[in-house]
Amino acid sequence: MKRSAVRRATTLALAAFATLGGLAHAADKSVTQPEVNYQAGGSPLGSEPMYQSTNPKAPAMTQAEFDLGRKTYFERCAGCHGVLRKGATGKPLTPDITLSKGTDYLKVFISYGSPAGMPNWLTSGELDEKTVDIMARYIQQDPPQPPEWGLDQMKSTWKVIVPPEKRPTKKMNNYNIANIFSTTLRDAGEVALIDGDTKKIINVVKTGYAVHISRMSASGRYLFVIGRDAKINMIDLWMEKPDNVAEIRVGLEARSVETSKYKGFEDKLAIAGSYWPPQYTIMNGDTLEPLKIVGTRGMTVDKQEYHPEPRVASIVASHFKPEFVVNVKETGKTLLVDYSDINALKTTEIGTARFLHDGGLDSTQRYFMVAANQSNKIAAIDLKEGKLAALIDVGKIPHPGRGANFVHPKFGPVWSTGDLGDDGISLIGTDPKGHKQYAWKVVETIKSQGGGSLFIKSHPKSQHLYVDNPLNPDPNVSRTVAVYDIKNLAKGYSVLPIAQWAGMNDGGAMRVVQPEYNKAGDEVWFSVWSAKDKQSAIVVVDDKTLKLKTVIKDPRLVTPTGHFNVHNTQHDIY
Amino acid sequence: MKRSAVRRATTLALAAFATLGGLAHAADKSVTQPEVNYQAGGSPLGSEPMYQSTNPKAPAMTQAEFDLGRKTYFERCAGCHGVLRKGATGKPLTPDITLSKGTDYLKVFISYGSPAGMPNWLTSGELDEKTVDIMARYIQQDPPQPPEWGLDQMKSTWKVIVPPEKRPTKKMNNYNIANIFSTTLRDAGEVALIDGDTKKIINVVKTGYAVHISRMSASGRYLFVIGRDAKINMIDLWMEKPDNVAEIRVGLEARSVETSKYKGFEDKLAIAGSYWPPQYTIMNGDTLEPLKIVGTRGMTVDKQEYHPEPRVASIVASHFKPEFVVNVKETGKTLLVDYSDINALKTTEIGTARFLHDGGLDSTQRYFMVAANQSNKIAAIDLKEGKLAALIDVGKIPHPGRGANFVHPKFGPVWSTGDLGDDGISLIGTDPKGHKQYAWKVVETIKSQGGGSLFIKSHPKSQHLYVDNPLNPDPNVSRTVAVYDIKNLAKGYSVLPIAQWAGMNDGGAMRVVQPEYNKAGDEVWFSVWSAKDKQSAIVVVDDKTLKLKTVIKDPRLVTPTGHFNVHNTQHDIY
Repeated sequence: MKRSAVRRATTLALAAFATLGGLAHAADKSVTQPEVNYQAGGSPLGSEPMYQSTNPKAPAMTQAEFDLGRKTYFERCAGCHGVLRKGATGKPLTPDITLSKGTDYLKVFISYGSPAGMPNWLTSGELDEKTVDIMARYIQQDPPQPPEWGLDQMKSTWKVIVPPEKRPTKKMNNYNIANIFSTTLRDAGEVALIDGDTKKIINVVKTGYAVHISRMSASGRYLFVIGRDAKINMIDLWMEKPDNVAEIRVGLEARSVETSKYKGFEDKLAIAGSYWPPQYTIMNGDTLEPLKIVGTRGMTVDKQEYHPEPRVASIVASHFKPEFVVNVKETGKTLLVDYSDINALKTTEIGTARFLHDGGLDSTQRYFMVAANQSNKIAAIDLKEGKLAALIDVGKIPHPGRGANFVHPKFGPVWSTGDLGDDGISLIGTDPKGHKQYAWKVVETIKSQGGGSLFIKSHPKSQHLYVDNPLNPDPNVSRTVAVYDIKNLAKGYSVLPIAQWAGMNDGGAMRVVQPEYNKAGDEVWFSVWSAKDKQSAIVVVDDKTLKLKTVIKDPRLVTPTGHFNVHNTQHDIY
Repeated sequence: MKRSAVRRATTLALAAFATLGGLAHAADKSVTQPEVNYQAGGSPLGSEPMYQSTNPKAPAMTQAEFDLGRKTYFERCAGCHGVLRKGATGKPLTPDITLSKGTDYLKVFISYGSPAGMPNWLTSGELDEKTVDIMARYIQQDPPQPPEWGLDQMKSTWKVIVPPEKRPTKKMNNYNIANIFSTTLRDAGEVALIDGDTKKIINVVKTGYAVHISRMSASGRYLFVIGRDAKINMIDLWMEKPDNVAEIRVGLEARSVETSKYKGFEDKLAIAGSYWPPQYTIMNGDTLEPLKIVGTRGMTVDKQEYHPEPRVASIVASHFKPEFVVNVKETGKTLLVDYSDINALKTTEIGTARFLHDGGLDSTQRYFMVAANQSNKIAAIDLKEGKLAALIDVGKIPHPGRGANFVHPKFGPVWSTGDLGDDGISLIGTDPKGHKQYAWKVVETIKSQGGGSLFIKSHPKSQHLYVDNPLNPDPNVSRTVAVYDIKNLAKGYSVLPIAQWAGMNDGGAMRVVQPEYNKAGDEVWFSVWSAKDKQSAIVVVDDKTLKLKTVIKDPRLVTPTGHFNVHNTQHDIY
């Protein structure tokens, strides 16, 4: 197939999938479901049919209902249950299970949720009765398989907006780049670059939908962001007005991007992990040119049975070797990918525990601590020796983000995680040399405000530990933040009324998410995340006094969620 | 699921698949297609439905016709076209291609074959008209997906017949073990162990169907064989009467088995590669206990697009590192699998060329030479440096077996391969130190008797090179063997009338296959392979005089094909 034909086929498939993918900005362009012949021979996309299941036992659906089910499933359900519905954070939803439950039972479950974590889609107002009925029937059909996404598809979405030779050769602006914050504007499909010194917005950059994370190149010049729709944008902070210089789509759904950080490889390579297709892609760090795609389909760590959808969750770059640390969720494997010769790619596969998700480095950066969320475990990977240091039992559904490192008065250096599923915060000893008896043990569990925590954060220059609870059902919890004195954890937490400080009342949707320090470690930023059509804000707290320092409000700050300080992200300080 | 339930489910699936798998010995037990509920929930086998395709465009078939088509496809077609019909040595046969050809065209093609290598199934008498009609309709249906095969399934087929502690502590027989030959009795599902000194049969051992190869443990004590049905048998040559001590089924279709040979790991581990599911399995070298299964589904080397069925072809053990060299056919990747710590399995993935199949080591054992058959290339892998040394263009569909090493009077050490698709024999220089200008080049192409060659063989103590042509359509070629004087290749070959020396006339089916030297390198053995109900034989030739030395005939020698001398196999001498 010629390049132009691939590009056309890819565009069609993207348009078709956009209606699945919750692409707010694609929908703005009035993309309607095109007439794609999914069974067309020759097309790399046509080889994976997506027509309605013909399973005769499944309840009948019209094609329009099936299409709405597919779209809604991708937007609301796939993150937890998986595209192929094999289950992960959520339970498996394959027809062998759903058919025996029946439509009525499934409707109740979808409407009202469950204490185990299933949201109450009807009563929360997020789905209407008609859609609940469609979803109850949809999940009894065989799951349609989304198309694969190989080098041809990637290249057809790859754009070098400013080639390396046309970029500045020195910094062309007066920003203190190291203190810029990159803030995800979730539903707008943008990131805001905010000057950490002046609190002014430098630029709002078009990106993929619901950017999951921002990562820095080793030099601190390039910022990489990845959307939930697997679109990567590469932003040059040396430009007079920092903006996109390259972009690519590495799949249909993704969460992670990272860059090579080992000595001699600074700014050379980037890597992104995909949820669908299950694979990771190594790219040129200058241009995002896709160089090497590696599939992750394979056997689970425990039962050694084949899994068709092992999604790539967090990725970090080692500071000890020329390696990327790639965490594969459903199979429970941490891959150390040696990028020094991508034509003879050397990979060490370390079996950990199923449902690997997020994590971060310890304070020495030798150990990577990764949450196996639905296994209620943290795996500690020794990046120097290239092996598992320990598997540690923690609370229910740990969700650390990158976690928080600090020195505990009794137990020495610890790394900590909050939980989605309970009110515990686990502190794990990370100093096998100086505090051997505490290493890789939960040395203390402290109480948080409750479940639904996403992020926990401290800083080497701070005496505080901050914990958010954006997914807690109690607005008094989800709109505030708990802060601990790390010299006196027994005292318990103080509550900071972050949303109240923002001075807004949106009537219900508002949540506070993701503490992030500035470069100096003397300020902490929080997103006050409201609905797309409501005002949101960023609240900045003085870390010494725990008082409000400033509130950033701007009409362009639509649905701010995660934010990342350049310096702290570049150097893995958290 | 409990172990007993897994065992029962596995037995059912095996019985069902036996009718697919051409298991002559299973059919002897009057296994009929059982009532397996392929859609049963909970069963690891039931999760992969195998019901008839519901593609409305495909021609109608009764369930009985579909089942016969599935069975015949697996026996006759899958080896070349792949279980999922994505193509390999044969062309792709997915419905997007076959539907547009139509039943009549396909019937002609199946009946009469093609010059490109498709056999003439009707006119050769191997399929009747009714079956040809069924196959023409069958390949227009969506390919049914066979079940996965994980640790539970393997363990339910794993048997330790004689545990290590009950085995002899020293050799309990008077055989010269190093000169035993292990001969595949293809259609009987057995191997014959033949005393190379006395030419007497020591034992006939029950194995899987159509044993593809025999391999030796590093110590020379244990013999491993693998059937096309992925059944491995481990035979202890120290027993008074050498026989099976352990067995396992690692999948539904397989070709390769090997054992760890690096210093310190002798006899510790075994490995087997599967065609279906596409994966390899590392086992305990004492008991065949399955330890680690690794899937091979992933991206092709050239276009970097996903392939659902990258089959594991040849595997050899490195003598330079604790590594297995695993060749993945459809994606064109050679994996160096470091087995020193299987809990942190380190793999180097070297991209070579698609359709990797068979190959062997050069005379120094540093380089592995592997045929990418449908790519018409040989890849030379440097096992010391862990990288590709060269990709070399050769003739049409190279098929070396393990190839033949000898010292060419002009070009120095060479490794050689014959071709399935033409009458060339390619000699490749393998001495980059002593003969740098010839290294990794085809230094000479010599003429063979014709296409259809499977094996080529020489020996360090011999001055001859032998080439068979069992798949050549001319019986004067397929029943004889060409032999060259390696000091004077320009002279051309002499023809040895091997089948005639065997003194049999079976009326047509007889073919001569696989030269194999004895330990001393002064005899060469050939199989004269006839039909299952006809007499076959092994012909032994004196290598010095090129005269007939002896003919081994025995009613138990049913369909002998490959044979392997213990010493030469143990030490990779070929």
